[in-house]
Amino acid sequence: MTGLNRVLVANRGEIAVRIIRACHAAGAEAVAVYSDADEHARWVRLADDARHVGRSPAAKSYLDSDAILDAAKVSECDAVHPGYGFLSESAHFARSVTTAGLVFVGPTASAIDLMGDKATARRTAVDAGVPVVPGSGPVTSIAEAQRAAADVGYPVLVKASAGGGGRGIRPVRDADELAAVLPAAQAEARAAFGDGTTYLERAVPHARHVEVQILADDRGNAVHLYERDCSVQRRRQKLLEEAPAPGLSPATREAVCAAAVRMAERVGYRSAGTVEFLVDPDENFYFIEMNTRVQVEHPITEAITGVDIVAEQLRVAAGEPLSVRQSDIALRGAALELRINAEDPDNAFAPSPGEVGVFELPGGPGVRVDTGLVRGDRISPFYDSLIAKLVCWGADRDQAYSRARQALSEFRIEGVANTVPLHRRLTSNPDLLAGPVHTKWLEQLLDDDR
Amino acid sequence: MTGLNRVLVANRGEIAVRIIRACHAAGAEAVAVYSDADEHARWVRLADDARHVGRSPAAKSYLDSDAILDAAKVSECDAVHPGYGFLSESAHFARSVTTAGLVFVGPTASAIDLMGDKATARRTAVDAGVPVVPGSGPVTSIAEAQRAAADVGYPVLVKASAGGGGRGIRPVRDADELAAVLPAAQAEARAAFGDGTTYLERAVPHARHVEVQILADDRGNAVHLYERDCSVQRRRQKLLEEAPAPGLSPATREAVCAAAVRMAERVGYRSAGTVEFLVDPDENFYFIEMNTRVQVEHPITEAITGVDIVAEQLRVAAGEPLSVRQSDIALRGAALELRINAEDPDNAFAPSPGEVGVFELPGGPGVRVDTGLVRGDRISPFYDSLIAKLVCWGADRDQAYSRARQALSEFRIEGVANTVPLHRRLTSNPDLLAGPVHTKWLEQLLDDDR
Repeated sequence: MTGLNRVLVANRGEIAVRIIRACHAAGAEAVAVYSDADEHARWVRLADDARHVGRSPAAKSYLDSDAILDAAKVSECDAVHPGYGFLSESAHFARSVTTAGLVFVGPTASAIDLMGDKATARRTAVDAGVPVVPGSGPVTSIAEAQRAAADVGYPVLVKASAGGGGRGIRPVRDADELAAVLPAAQAEARAAFGDGTTYLERAVPHARHVEVQILADDRGNAVHLYERDCSVQRRRQKLLEEAPAPGLSPATREAVCAAAVRMAERVGYRSAGTVEFLVDPDENFYFIEMNTRVQVEHPITEAITGVDIVAEQLRVAAGEPLSVRQSDIALRGAALELRINAEDPDNAFAPSPGEVGVFELPGGPGVRVDTGLVRGDRISPFYDSLIAKLVCWGADRDQAYSRARQALSEFRIEGVANTVPLHRRLTSNPDLLAGPVHTKWLEQLLDDDR
Repeated sequence: MTGLNRVLVANRGEIAVRIIRACHAAGAEAVAVYSDADEHARWVRLADDARHVGRSPAAKSYLDSDAILDAAKVSECDAVHPGYGFLSESAHFARSVTTAGLVFVGPTASAIDLMGDKATARRTAVDAGVPVVPGSGPVTSIAEAQRAAADVGYPVLVKASAGGGGRGIRPVRDADELAAVLPAAQAEARAAFGDGTTYLERAVPHARHVEVQILADDRGNAVHLYERDCSVQRRRQKLLEEAPAPGLSPATREAVCAAAVRMAERVGYRSAGTVEFLVDPDENFYFIEMNTRVQVEHPITEAITGVDIVAEQLRVAAGEPLSVRQSDIALRGAALELRINAEDPDNAFAPSPGEVGVFELPGGPGVRVDTGLVRGDRISPFYDSLIAKLVCWGADRDQAYSRARQALSEFRIEGVANTVPLHRRLTSNPDLLAGPVHTKWLEQLLDDDR
């Protein structure tokens, strides 16, 4: 039983359902929000109350912090859970919530600020004794950038300080290319993030994306829930994630998890967060960024640890301690998440909005499906294309994959093109089964198809 | 990867789906069987092949051992999994399968015989040093029964030696009642089981039903997977089961689990089995019977141990060792199963056959649904009324119950009366939440309604 009475769920889709479940399991009421397009959505029905917050484009509803905050006040909520995406990493929104006398279910606004600026985050990592990819401070002129790049060592990536989620990153092989790319990168960063500051980082070839789930409370407890491997990506969008990271040595696992906890402690972090690393083929690891929110792929960590991450967020937001200490958290088995998106893998992953005519979910041991949809719902063109997250756990990685193949064979979705067929193929791919793969592996596989 | 190539799934409904999943996850093909009524059923579609085995009444199809065995041969299966119910505890069927050169996924026919006769099973328990309820050998005349009852101590139960699943049991308070009841009990036993032998057992008031899941292989390994409490029953039909048994002392848990393993070892048991006990309010425990098959409620044990019981059955049937040793099997968290039946709790649990119009399943962390149905399927009057098994796991019992309440609030079934509303009520009942309850608790609760 958490101390929160009524929580505004400031999100939509499967994560809104997920948060409502956690609120109810904790004995709190949940208030949904919805745009025009989502009026009859599943999470609206599952919530105890619901508020319309604007028109269908997210900028007019789910990203409208004033409308969301109004909805929280009018419905007499005492807390706001932002989910992921939308306003979840807006320090401004977190501050507005707190200023209004409500609880923001997440870290402090200053922690969001700190980690939102990639250069500051990087400095924080260095201060915490966490390895970072060799890189520069902010670079302005071409000459300055070329000097810095010579120190860092080519190939380098030009990155926007205010970027995130893989956006605003350009690879550069040499000084000439850097000269050509820098002005455009700065202009793009200014346009996309309102801040043209860029810096350089050494590219790490054949790197894996490994991230550590952490939880922390206001009482000085910070723990890790082990790591996830999210290397199976297309255009930096994760498609399949695993926990724990396959083939990672126990020593590296321990080191990377300890580094993530040091980061959290360094910034006085609170709530759930994810510390992301690149891991090269020799298992050198480098901090890349920290996401100050619950992650799409959090269920695979729940599957291997038995810890309910959203429930812990609610506890911490209510001022309670974490329900677990590090010594309580054992890693059991292996899990993978398959993102079932309404996209057409045979057509450059074009979004495939439409009505979900047939919707038969898989089940059985180790199988969890998180979805914001029911049969007959429409996938809207306004939002991301996630239909469902299929999470499969097994006593070992082989069993998790076997169950995933079976679950995919049971999953029936009609009416929209989707990634189930692609996942059937991936979960039988010998390279992936042998694991690990690097972050460009999937794109190469898809290129080979053409 | 099991050594079996192709398994006949000699059952229907959710357990057929469960076995097909396990076969596929183990790399084996699965062949379904179906009666007229089940031609278009989900498990028929999920299997690699399917055989019609007769008309809708079970006696003409699922209980027709010749038809089932023929289906196995014609479809070139190398093994038969009987599931639960139907032919699963027929030693004759197990023997036919083996004689035909196929593998019976279960114990030896002689083990089934041994445990199928309750008097022999009881003697085996005594030999294994497992406590049994004070009772008699077979009693024939009234005078003999009255002498035996005086030794055993009233109240006693008159039981059919060949009975099982709670059938053929009559409670008796004194010698006069015994004289009145015995002839009828003998006649009934003869009619129901083809064997009129009866014996007496002391009634154990306010007892809980606690059963231990065991697994054993052909290499001399026998392990337990801890216990389940199945005391929430109506007319000896289980409605809600929990693992582990709430409030059981660690010493009793250890003792009852060890007793179950001794039983299994004593009879050279193989495959999955369940050893059932009565536990009185002082935690004295008494063997009642052993079920030589997978149990409906096996998923709650899978939830707390992470062991896939059907997968282990397939391994053992293929001559492989169990994948786990006792020291590998840790108890994590708590789980409950809610049987969602097409029965009307407001109308004496009358069966409610019909078409399932809406069928929205719950999901999220710790929630598993096993069902043989999809939206639009018909619940047939020919078979048991199980719509789905809702299994909820939590890091502790409170969390498991909280998740169960949430899952029940999400579960939408239209078209047939069902037990979801009853389970909503049960999972909020203070007596049950305080636990444990005894085997007559639910009937008293339902009586109080009238």
